[in-house]
Amino acid sequence: MLEYTTAGESHGQCLLTLIEGLPYGTPIDLDHVNDELARRQGGYGRGARMKMEKDRAEVLTGLRKGETLGSPVTLRIENRVSNTAELNPITRPRPGHADLAGAMKFGTKDARGISERASARETAARVAAGALANAFLKRFDIEVLGYLVGLGGVVSDFWLDDPGEIRDRRDKSLFYTPDATLDEKLKRLVDEAKRDGDTLGGVFEVAAFHCPPGLGSHAGWRDKMDGILARALISVQTVKGVEIGMGFGAAGLRGSDVHDVIVKEKEGKLGRTRNNAGGIEGGMTNGQPVVCRAACKPISSLLKPLATVDLKTNEANRAAYERSDVCVVPAASVIGEAVVSFELAGAFLRKFGGDTYAETRERFDRYRKGLEKFTS
Amino acid sequence: MLEYTTAGESHGQCLLTLIEGLPYGTPIDLDHVNDELARRQGGYGRGARMKMEKDRAEVLTGLRKGETLGSPVTLRIENRVSNTAELNPITRPRPGHADLAGAMKFGTKDARGISERASARETAARVAAGALANAFLKRFDIEVLGYLVGLGGVVSDFWLDDPGEIRDRRDKSLFYTPDATLDEKLKRLVDEAKRDGDTLGGVFEVAAFHCPPGLGSHAGWRDKMDGILARALISVQTVKGVEIGMGFGAAGLRGSDVHDVIVKEKEGKLGRTRNNAGGIEGGMTNGQPVVCRAACKPISSLLKPLATVDLKTNEANRAAYERSDVCVVPAASVIGEAVVSFELAGAFLRKFGGDTYAETRERFDRYRKGLEKFTS
Amino acid sequence: MLEYTTAGESHGQCLLTLIEGLPYGTPIDLDHVNDELARRQGGYGRGARMKMEKDRAEVLTGLRKGETLGSPVTLRIENRVSNTAELNPITRPRPGHADLAGAMKFGTKDARGISERASARETAARVAAGALANAFLKRFDIEVLGYLVGLGGVVSDFWLDDPGEIRDRRDKSLFYTPDATLDEKLKRLVDEAKRDGDTLGGVFEVAAFHCPPGLGSHAGWRDKMDGILARALISVQTVKGVEIGMGFGAAGLRGSDVHDVIVKEKEGKLGRTRNNAGGIEGGMTNGQPVVCRAACKPISSLLKPLATVDLKTNEANRAAYERSDVCVVPAASVIGEAVVSFELAGAFLRKFGGDTYAETRERFDRYRKGLEKFTS
Amino acid sequence: MLEYTTAGESHGQCLLTLIEGLPYGTPIDLDHVNDELARRQGGYGRGARMKMEKDRAEVLTGLRKGETLGSPVTLRIENRVSNTAELNPITRPRPGHADLAGAMKFGTKDARGISERASARETAARVAAGALANAFLKRFDIEVLGYLVGLGGVVSDFWLDDPGEIRDRRDKSLFYTPDATLDEKLKRLVDEAKRDGDTLGGVFEVAAFHCPPGLGSHAGWRDKMDGILARALISVQTVKGVEIGMGFGAAGLRGSDVHDVIVKEKEGKLGRTRNNAGGIEGGMTNGQPVVCRAACKPISSLLKPLATVDLKTNEANRAAYERSDVCVVPAASVIGEAVVSFELAGAFLRKFGGDTYAETRERFDRYRKGLEKFTS
Repeated sequence: MLEYTTAGESHGQCLLTLIEGLPYGTPIDLDHVNDELARRQGGYGRGARMKMEKDRAEVLTGLRKGETLGSPVTLRIENRVSNTAELNPITRPRPGHADLAGAMKFGTKDARGISERASARETAARVAAGALANAFLKRFDIEVLGYLVGLGGVVSDFWLDDPGEIRDRRDKSLFYTPDATLDEKLKRLVDEAKRDGDTLGGVFEVAAFHCPPGLGSHAGWRDKMDGILARALISVQTVKGVEIGMGFGAAGLRGSDVHDVIVKEKEGKLGRTRNNAGGIEGGMTNGQPVVCRAACKPISSLLKPLATVDLKTNEANRAAYERSDVCVVPAASVIGEAVVSFELAGAFLRKFGGDTYAETRERFDRYRKGLEKFTS
Repeated sequence: MLEYTTAGESHGQCLLTLIEGLPYGTPIDLDHVNDELARRQGGYGRGARMKMEKDRAEVLTGLRKGETLGSPVTLRIENRVSNTAELNPITRPRPGHADLAGAMKFGTKDARGISERASARETAARVAAGALANAFLKRFDIEVLGYLVGLGGVVSDFWLDDPGEIRDRRDKSLFYTPDATLDEKLKRLVDEAKRDGDTLGGVFEVAAFHCPPGLGSHAGWRDKMDGILARALISVQTVKGVEIGMGFGAAGLRGSDVHDVIVKEKEGKLGRTRNNAGGIEGGMTNGQPVVCRAACKPISSLLKPLATVDLKTNEANRAAYERSDVCVVPAASVIGEAVVSFELAGAFLRKFGGDTYAETRERFDRYRKGLEKFTS
Repeated sequence: MLEYTTAGESHGQCLLTLIEGLPYGTPIDLDHVNDELARRQGGYGRGARMKMEKDRAEVLTGLRKGETLGSPVTLRIENRVSNTAELNPITRPRPGHADLAGAMKFGTKDARGISERASARETAARVAAGALANAFLKRFDIEVLGYLVGLGGVVSDFWLDDPGEIRDRRDKSLFYTPDATLDEKLKRLVDEAKRDGDTLGGVFEVAAFHCPPGLGSHAGWRDKMDGILARALISVQTVKGVEIGMGFGAAGLRGSDVHDVIVKEKEGKLGRTRNNAGGIEGGMTNGQPVVCRAACKPISSLLKPLATVDLKTNEANRAAYERSDVCVVPAASVIGEAVVSFELAGAFLRKFGGDTYAETRERFDRYRKGLEKFTS
Repeated sequence: MLEYTTAGESHGQCLLTLIEGLPYGTPIDLDHVNDELARRQGGYGRGARMKMEKDRAEVLTGLRKGETLGSPVTLRIENRVSNTAELNPITRPRPGHADLAGAMKFGTKDARGISERASARETAARVAAGALANAFLKRFDIEVLGYLVGLGGVVSDFWLDDPGEIRDRRDKSLFYTPDATLDEKLKRLVDEAKRDGDTLGGVFEVAAFHCPPGLGSHAGWRDKMDGILARALISVQTVKGVEIGMGFGAAGLRGSDVHDVIVKEKEGKLGRTRNNAGGIEGGMTNGQPVVCRAACKPISSLLKPLATVDLKTNEANRAAYERSDVCVVPAASVIGEAVVSFELAGAFLRKFGGDTYAETRERFDRYRKGLEKFTS
């Protein structure tokens, strides 16, 4: 089973991600991992801290001559600022952060030890694992792309069927959005929010193209692909809502307007006239693009800090202030791409398995071939 | 660790739910389980089939003199119609169902074997497990309530702070909604959809009152309470979207309008002026009510079946027709209450543990007591 | 992942075993399960209780037309005596049983609730799951056989290479041993022990023939086949020691006398001159027969009960008396065969996987074919 | 749940051990970890390689000011020789190693990629994790000690009740045995084997003193303490057999000679007259010392290599030669102490849990106090 575990704190020596379950002999290309780490640090609306750091992943274990050994692969990302012992205590819990809930859970009035792990710095390790999985899927022609679709109340209805074009457009945008009409408008929103010492939320989408049908399973609730993806996405620090396909929109329509009827396409292939299901029916991928949206709250560290109570003095005060981004939705779209990639790769390997990369490939090819009986 | 597994098919002998991890000596009251099973079968908009069946849970294992033994508790719900061998094949896959994805995954042109398990009948077993967990939490004064808030495009902004009042109002409503203004309007919508041979989706909410802070954890992405709840909810057959607290609404606002500032309430207790976070910060409950919303698509079996292709003949046709509900959102709210209850109980037992019910209670009480240092 | 969970108490309504992870379309034959349940109840040295009961497994879920559906398969075994509420308390803990440790763990002076689940009655559910797995492996020509090799101090060095002959001989023996020279001697030992109100332990062996190489893995300690088998065997109520291959014997020899040198056999096949490793090297099967031995303590319920202390009165007394077998090693060999079969089937499905039985078979066949490059 | 995962290869950059589940605020003392790493490298009978390396553990994550943060703790042990890319291929599989089984599993004729992970170098990471767990248990007065009891056919019946004395004696012995009569005899055996280019196996014991009763559980086969310990021990590369308490000895005796009768000791405490059960009954610790023995095969790399077949040339040859220890049983006793410590600490935390170290301690103390009702 493909799984990853992250370790490390914001101001500790490093972040780690330990990945288990890659078949023996899988080629690993670190360049895509490092590109994604860089993308996570970018996007319009980031503060000075992000520009200072420059994350790079290093392989500690599990690799020989560029290929996996079937043992855990560990990636290490160094922290530039590493001084956990000297950090100030956090006694004025920040609304929207883990500070107060964590202080109560762990019986402490200093939330520093919680903040060190709860902060979004940890997502660099998730991006590393996810980028590795993303490159793995790419070898099977599965393309997973995350991109921004909305910010500060502006949401695009944009849809493109071509992953290459999405990627091209997205990579030219300040906000990682393929909708070229948005950049100017969003830049203005961010600049205004920054001027006001405030922050902005938004929406990103992750689409996976060319997923084979049958990832996930209907047979047990824990195996359902949609549940697995929703968990991964909502576990990203900033995400408060998730939709598969049409999502909340489907709740307001009639069945005849929602479900994706099955038709014969040219050459007798089975097809759909639309993709409101977001590529998942019965907890399984159905061969259509897998499409999820995630709602990001505005980040909770404001330049004009919110009201709180100091746990030590028990007096009303302003929240501790730790960093200065205005908007992290572009970065969140990178993290979203990563976690969706990882979970799809996990489902892929649950379906195809294989002790070796060659075995996995052969099984995949045979399954693809077997699907032809459904197409003519 | 508290976990449950369901087994059983729609037309097999029975459904089962096997629950592991309840402490030794936990009192079990089947009445609440049976009440919830009955509620799952009700709600305006159900077809004739639902009226015929009358689900009852029977305890097969794990109990002695009304208390658990620390071993797995198994509940059995008999199926009234039990004839898996004689069922018709399903060769015309229903859009929105598991039929086509499952047929491809399992290499068959008859989706009956998939439909038997993928159908919503399985949720009866989840309701049984969840109702048991719900009653367990009630013993610690934690009240988890699911209710409908929207249907066919009508969505209520309704909020009540009092679980008793929510329950009372909900239990008087045809649609399991505490918003008394809705019933008439929704009844009309359902009747119209029925007349047109169509179906309706909607939105339900689950709120958990008096949850202690600190359920879930910030320390690893798999431990985050919001991720766990989202997965459980989206794994319900009809759910396509999930929000924690303000959800997608938060994506359109500024940080200063979203985050729940921390204030001193009377007697020095820490409080919040609002609950946009839905009771979860940093992946942990924060002591506020936990609030989630779920979007249900309209059910995919329509009286006027949708277009599809017959897998055997490869000809365009109408989808197989299996049942006749117009709207299952009230029932979905019962299932939602169940799965949220179960996952909160799981997090509760991960936090408090205990080999025996007495030990769990003592640990809970001591934690509650320890929290007083944060309140004055 | 193939896994099973048992539920049920000695005097509850039934025992259950819930099996997850069998591929869709796997043929299930209950006859072998029932044969093994009968064998578990037999063997020379059992008391009257065993003769009264006659265990039969019934399928509750997961099957249609004799084949699995990919959902959990549940087997139910009815208990003849079912009256948990009326059972006497156990206040005089039996040495060698779970009674005292359990009483302390669960804070009770009545160990009945512990004994109901700790008793060996539960192994009927393990035999059911294991027999099902055993029949599954048989379809791939893997034969797993458990048999007695020692009792009351007499231990046979017996070894046969032919599973058919082992089975034939074993099934003719009162003690389930293929060593025909033992029966008379053992019968005398048992009769003597019975006369003295005492009990006897012994040793059984489980051998798996025609296992493909590569089950288990060297890559992580939790994946090692030997560790998995040892855990399964020692978890059987009566087992206190386990050996893989030569076991403790290997500790007393030099390396040159232990390790199984690799040689070319006729037709260029790779072979070994002996099998001291018991078919497992580096945590993986190596293509030789997998051979494990397990030491069973004498059962701890004696007709002349052992000394204990009454937890209620705090007075020295004789232990509670519950049943009257003299020797259960033959039965333990049936349980051992079951649990080894299940774990090998689990490793088999981790290696080969497959959503359907047809897929599993095809993957297995291709692997077998690929191994030819190591043989000439 | 307390769990650890190791990563790293023999000639990679480093070994890692990632430990999840330690409560927040647990004090960590690296000195004991480093002492145990040094002990693992010592013992009479090791080759030159061991003397060259000097393992030290470094904390990468999870710690602040010497205390855990509730997030994963990662320890890193640097490899002195780090050149995976340049290593020779292994085409002459070594009998007793993972080489041949792994080559077949992974479809390769070069077993180097398997050997890198299968080799006993990996146990350094297990020792690090286990030593950390050992020091954790020590804080609760639970002392876990591993020591050699036999070598090359000589086995001691030695037993001491006093952990301090065991430790003192053991730490003076060349062979890590508390039986002072053995050292001379064993030294002679090792020197003889070395002269003959051969290797020796042996037996070690691990004893855990002052374990509270009730670790593990009778309620499910996967929870049984004996099964968990046996798996951990047999997963150590060299171990081929495990006994709990009397082990195989119990198979040859009558019940009245085996079971540990329960008696009233002075001051009314419940006691036992012997400990043949090895401190575990019904899958739970019973308050007596937990005692396990493990049989180590002689190591399989001999100075006079064993016969094998070259996979590339398909010609008979001598096995690849990699290192030169004569006997690793003393080192194995260190590893055994580590893995038993870790699994006991895991069971300890499953029983007591706690988000913080303070909570764990309080729960432990209350349980201890509650046990007094069984003692008078």
